[in-house]
Amino acid sequence: MRVTLLAGGTGGAKLAHGFQQVLAPGELTVVVNVADDTELYGLRVSPDVDTVLYTLAGLVNPETGWGLRGDSWTALEMLGRYGEPTWFRVGDADLATHVRRTQLLGAGVSLTDATQSMADALGVRSHILPATDDRVRTILQTDAGELEFQDYFVRLRQEPEVQAARFDGIVAARPTQQVLAALESAELLVIAPSNPVVSVEPILGLRGVREAFQSAADRGIPRVAVSPIVAGAALKGPADRMLASLAHEATALGVARMYAGLIDTFVLDEADATLASQVEELRMRAVVLPTVMRSDADRATLARALLST
Amino acid sequence: MRVTLLAGGTGGAKLAHGFQQVLAPGELTVVVNVADDTELYGLRVSPDVDTVLYTLAGLVNPETGWGLRGDSWTALEMLGRYGEPTWFRVGDADLATHVRRTQLLGAGVSLTDATQSMADALGVRSHILPATDDRVRTILQTDAGELEFQDYFVRLRQEPEVQAARFDGIVAARPTQQVLAALESAELLVIAPSNPVVSVEPILGLRGVREAFQSAADRGIPRVAVSPIVAGAALKGPADRMLASLAHEATALGVARMYAGLIDTFVLDEADATLASQVEELRMRAVVLPTVMRSDADRATLARALLST
Repeated sequence: MRVTLLAGGTGGAKLAHGFQQVLAPGELTVVVNVADDTELYGLRVSPDVDTVLYTLAGLVNPETGWGLRGDSWTALEMLGRYGEPTWFRVGDADLATHVRRTQLLGAGVSLTDATQSMADALGVRSHILPATDDRVRTILQTDAGELEFQDYFVRLRQEPEVQAARFDGIVAARPTQQVLAALESAELLVIAPSNPVVSVEPILGLRGVREAFQSAADRGIPRVAVSPIVAGAALKGPADRMLASLAHEATALGVARMYAGLIDTFVLDEADATLASQVEELRMRAVVLPTVMRSDADRATLARALLST
Repeated sequence: MRVTLLAGGTGGAKLAHGFQQVLAPGELTVVVNVADDTELYGLRVSPDVDTVLYTLAGLVNPETGWGLRGDSWTALEMLGRYGEPTWFRVGDADLATHVRRTQLLGAGVSLTDATQSMADALGVRSHILPATDDRVRTILQTDAGELEFQDYFVRLRQEPEVQAARFDGIVAARPTQQVLAALESAELLVIAPSNPVVSVEPILGLRGVREAFQSAADRGIPRVAVSPIVAGAALKGPADRMLASLAHEATALGVARMYAGLIDTFVLDEADATLASQVEELRMRAVVLPTVMRSDADRATLARALLST
């Protein structure tokens, strides 16, 4: 079954890995957020793409959910000596990824093709597609002023309160042909348990993506989202606080409301089973599953369950 | 005493370090060859500048004479996974240098200013000047075909026989104002024990450099060269074989001939004392000194001797 998954970083990467375990090679396409991409030391860094890439290649650091297992920090120390900021914790192997990507982009290769080339080199047997080859940048209005995403997320450890989010460039940006094709050919569309504001919205907001979800519905293709909020809290990251400060409800129900009209099925964690009836009032099916992925087996189990929802 | 030293990599870096030990801070300026610079992974690599930088910063790997002490190789392994060539043995901290330089160049900073900024950051108290901010590239005609310098030097381990060397771009290239000023204000001009063909010639060949040597002579400024060939062999690198295949004599005398008319004093190693009279026939003074620098103290001793030649 051809599955197209919309994903941000860690949570999205874990579910992608679950699907990769249970699908035939090539059947999974992950459309990945790039609105939190940044420039670091003159290099192009695509944090969500990298997390998905490392996870699907079996190289991710299991302790952190990002970066590479067994990475070293020698280059970062030297960059610090040169007066460069070191708050973005780039390991040496991770730096190699940014160097390689930047080299390919500099040679005129698209981010899509660069990602494909790197995924192929690492033996990944799923398709990893940046949502767009155009430049979209998440800018957060916070009580500490206007911040680029990584500035907020890594440097300031998500401490500022987010008052508004905007995605510079999103009106002009286009999803790639590959993304549109993956949405059109999918037999199942899934929105990963990723931050709905800063990971999923910059994908859905690209022209043609919501329309592709609608047209999938017309063809009878199931559209499923998995809640990133369990028992009122994000498993990782600031999604819960961000939802609250942006006047959403910081619960699975709050997330379901954001996806109303877009999906047919909303997957709630068992901890949130009591919200099922309220979710169903949003004209979507509520499915209760164990969604917390603590192991590779958990990931595969959740993916398998989603295939049969 | 203000000393300006023309240098390539390891041998030049050692003598530079000797001068730095015995001169007051800021009195040493090293004009460094950049004709063997290359692009690697989309990054600008300046091998001779880096060797001088690391040596003067006290960071160089003493085992190799290049690269950084205690460096790790994690990024290189990852770059290999991405299908990049790994024969140019870039350590992680060394990669940080290339990233930093490339970032500065990409921001419109000159190679000269980038080098200065990096040397300052590492606490170097001498001036390190790339010979030119323009692009000069050493191309070697060899029995294995035409080769870029690093291709010959690192990848092919200097095994091919060099039949000719040319420096693409040298006619259009200009020495920087800083280089010309350092040649004009020097109270002692020294040519380091570097390869005369591929390290020194691409500096001397820049428009105005030989003229600056002449004008220094007119002002009575001593001009000294130290032989890179001792007892018919290069201490490091392929200078001896290169001299022979390029129809020079692979001896200190052969090197002295290449510098005839340019310098007043040629420093021979004690092992070559018997060549002194032939060197003096070239209308230069021959000075016999222990030139082999095995320790920091040897470097300082040689530098001190050169100050009083």
